[in-house]
Amino acid sequence: MKPSARAKKPEAEAPAARGVRADAQRNLDALLEAAKAVFSTSGVDAPVREIAARAGVGVATVYRHFPQRSDLVAAVFRREIDACAAAAPALARQHEPDEALARWLRRYTSFIATKRGLAAALHSGDPAFDSLPAYFRQTHEPALQSLLDAAVTAGQIRDDVAAYDLLRAVGNLATATGEDGALHSRRMVDLLIDGLRYGALGAAPKGQRRSR
Amino acid sequence: MKPSARAKKPEAEAPAARGVRADAQRNLDALLEAAKAVFSTSGVDAPVREIAARAGVGVATVYRHFPQRSDLVAAVFRREIDACAAAAPALARQHEPDEALARWLRRYTSFIATKRGLAAALHSGDPAFDSLPAYFRQTHEPALQSLLDAAVTAGQIRDDVAAYDLLRAVGNLATATGEDGALHSRRMVDLLIDGLRYGALGAAPKGQRRSR
Repeated sequence: MKPSARAKKPEAEAPAARGVRADAQRNLDALLEAAKAVFSTSGVDAPVREIAARAGVGVATVYRHFPQRSDLVAAVFRREIDACAAAAPALARQHEPDEALARWLRRYTSFIATKRGLAAALHSGDPAFDSLPAYFRQTHEPALQSLLDAAVTAGQIRDDVAAYDLLRAVGNLATATGEDGALHSRRMVDLLIDGLRYGALGAAPKGQRRSR
Repeated sequence: MKPSARAKKPEAEAPAARGVRADAQRNLDALLEAAKAVFSTSGVDAPVREIAARAGVGVATVYRHFPQRSDLVAAVFRREIDACAAAAPALARQHEPDEALARWLRRYTSFIATKRGLAAALHSGDPAFDSLPAYFRQTHEPALQSLLDAAVTAGQIRDDVAAYDLLRAVGNLATATGEDGALHSRRMVDLLIDGLRYGALGAAPKGQRRSR
């Protein structure tokens, strides 16, 4: 599985233009960060003026960047997908392969669990969201696959579970509701991770593994 | 955890009355079996005459037993819950504890997966369904707990996962949709079962288990 090319090469430009661009990017980041925070407390239908106020910009600026609310929602979601995927190599640098894998799957679990409202928006049929499910998969799948590959190579987990299957399973486990939903999801995802460890080469005496 | 008392003691009665009762029970069983089959092919809104025809009884007989459609749906569902729970001791007699556990969880997975339409009915607010979620849990939980206990005693699985947590997790994993949904669910439930095995006393060298 090849990671998809996500980073576009910046075009050649003058230093001044780069400065303006960097400013614009910072403003856009602040806006998206504000929108993320407001969406998570007030839902994706929160008033635009609340988002603008939090970002320290005018309402007109929000509309200039994102003519439709769905454009803003989609941009926030893309940015969070990118951040979740970017956590994979960062964790891999800091931890043993199986621990990096476990931590990333827990992060992904929280990501899914907190995005339930957004999920409903995603299935609303708005064309702004059309590309998001594919983006979701093509970004997370190689991120997880790289963690799985490293843990398989280290002999810490079995080699017969595909990244996409795990993403689906964790996504389903993360839908647990109720007061203890988050804790339950986390514990069950940990159990799934131990299932990966169980089949590792040398992790358990051969006699313990049964043919099915 | 004590299994709830489900079987009511039959009252003392004359042999003739028992014969009539046995006949009535057989008719009722045939009707419920027919309803189950029709619901699974045509949905829970299938015409009553289709169910009556399949059971070889008149439509009036169906209405005499079940004045409302929801009464029939609830009765079919209760019967299936009973059958699923009853499979636990039967599997325990035939297989090693961990294998009995795995087989029961797979059966439970199929049960959930094929009951998606019914689940929607259950949440419709009809009072006929009020007691079903509690019945579902109080019947399946002790059935699974007995399998877990036996596998823990045999040293085949870890002892820190509760039956109810597993029921919830498997229920969530079983919601996978799409062409390969059933296969995916089954494989992920197997992975969860291996997670139970991973923590078994003596299943893996101590060094392989990490403190978290």
